Amino acid sequence: MPQLVLIRHGQSAWNLENRFTGWWDVDLTMQGVEEAREAGRLMKEKGLDFDLTFTSLQTRAIKTLNLALEAMGRLWLPTEKDWRLNERHYGGLTGLDKAETAARHGDEQVKVWRRSFDVPPPPMDAGSDFDLSKDRRYADIQVPATESLKDTIARVLPYFNERIAPELNAGQRVLISAHGNSLRALVKHLSNIPDDEITGLEIPTGKPIVYELDDQLNAVERYYLHER
Amino acid sequence: MPQLVLIRHGQSAWNLENRFTGWWDVDLTMQGVEEAREAGRLMKEKGLDFDLTFTSLQTRAIKTLNLALEAMGRLWLPTEKDWRLNERHYGGLTGLDKAETAARHGDEQVKVWRRSFDVPPPPMDAGSDFDLSKDRRYADIQVPATESLKDTIARVLPYFNERIAPELNAGQRVLISAHGNSLRALVKHLSNIPDDEITGLEIPTGKPIVYELDDQLNAVERYYLHER
Repeated sequence: MPQLVLIRHGQSAWNLENRFTGWWDVDLTMQGVEEAREAGRLMKEKGLDFDLTFTSLQTRAIKTLNLALEAMGRLWLPTEKDWRLNERHYGGLTGLDKAETAARHGDEQVKVWRRSFDVPPPPMDAGSDFDLSKDRRYADIQVPATESLKDTIARVLPYFNERIAPELNAGQRVLISAHGNSLRALVKHLSNIPDDEITGLEIPTGKPIVYELDDQLNAVERYYLHER
Repeated sequence: MPQLVLIRHGQSAWNLENRFTGWWDVDLTMQGVEEAREAGRLMKEKGLDFDLTFTSLQTRAIKTLNLALEAMGRLWLPTEKDWRLNERHYGGLTGLDKAETAARHGDEQVKVWRRSFDVPPPPMDAGSDFDLSKDRRYADIQVPATESLKDTIARVLPYFNERIAPELNAGQRVLISAHGNSLRALVKHLSNIPDDEITGLEIPTGKPIVYELDDQLNAVERYYLHER
C-alpha cells in the first residue's frame, strides 16, 4: 500500500507576525526549528520510514525537512527540490500583516482573498521589495505576479503526477515538506475535497499528515501522526 | 573556466577524540557546526557561488554542506548524495583511538597504515559494533570490509568522472562536501600528486579548497579560500 507523508514547515518568522509570506524566503523561528525536530522524532518513534523526499525551493520547508530527517537518522535520503511545491504566491499582499492588509483593502476584501478558491490577490508591483523575479533560483521559470489557490494547484498537481506519483506506484515511501497551500493542493487531490471546502482546511505547522493510498493513489486513510 | 570547490566536513566527535571513523556515522561537534557556517559565510563574502552540490551518505558531510549552503542563502541548490564520496573505510581500526590502536597493533604498524597508499588496515570483523553492512543506506552496495587510499580512489574517481566532470564541462559551478580521504582522492587526481606524496597531504576541516580548472579539468590553481 503506497505511503505518503506530508509536513508543513515549522513556524516561520512571518507566521508569528501574521504576515502574508508566499514566495518570500522567511526563516523558521526557534519554535519552528523545534517543531521540525519533534516531527522527525515522532515519525521515527512511530516507525515511519522513507525512501525519497521532496521539498520546495524555500528555506523554511528545506530546513524543516533536513531537521526532521536528521532527527530520524535519515539525512542521507535523496531529496528533490522544486519550485512547484512552493507556497502560493500572495502577490501584492506579500509582506503585509493582518492590520496593514485590512487598512489597505478592507476586512471584507481580505476575507474574499483568504477564502476564495480562484480569486487571486492583486499582482505584486514590479518594483516591490518582495519581487523575486530576478532571484537566481527562479532563473528558469516565470515567477508569478500573484496566485489563487486554483493557480497553485495548477502547478502542484502536474509536479505530483509527473515526479511523485510514479515513485509511489513503484513502492517508494515518500515524505513531502512544503507549505500551507501547496499541501492544500495535494490534500484536495488525494482526499477529493470540493473547491469551496479546501480553502477552509487549516494545515498546522510541523505535524506529519500520513496518507495510506490505494493503487490508484486515492486516500484510504488520512490522519495526523500525533493522533495515532 | 570550470570552478570546483571542495570542503572537508567540520570537526566531528571522533576527530576530537582522535578515533578512526571511516564509515561510522559520527556527528559534528559544536565547533564543527561553527566551522561549516563560517565556511559558508566566507564563500559568500568572497563571491563564490554554485549551481550543483555533491556530498557523501554520511551525516557529518551532509550537515556541513547544509550549514554552509544556509549561510550562503543557497539551501535551495540541488544536492546529490552518493556513497562513493564516503570516507575511506578503516576496517578493523574503526572506533579505536590512537592509544588503543598503538597498544593493539604497535606504533610502527599504525604508521604503515596511516602513510601507505595501498596497504589496507585489517578487515572489520563481521560481528563488529561498527559493521554497517546491514545499514539500509547501503542496501544496494557491498560495504567494504576495509580500504586502502588506493581502494578509496578506485570508487571516488569513477564517480567524479561519471557524475561531476560532465557538469563541470557544461559550465556548472560545483561544491563537494566530503571527507579527508575521498577529498585526497580528488586532489591527487586534479593536481596530479604522486602516490607517495598524497598520503601525507593533510586536508583541514571546514576550509574551502578552490580549484580553477582548464578545459581538460586539470588544476590551473588550487588554494584555500582564506588565503585569498
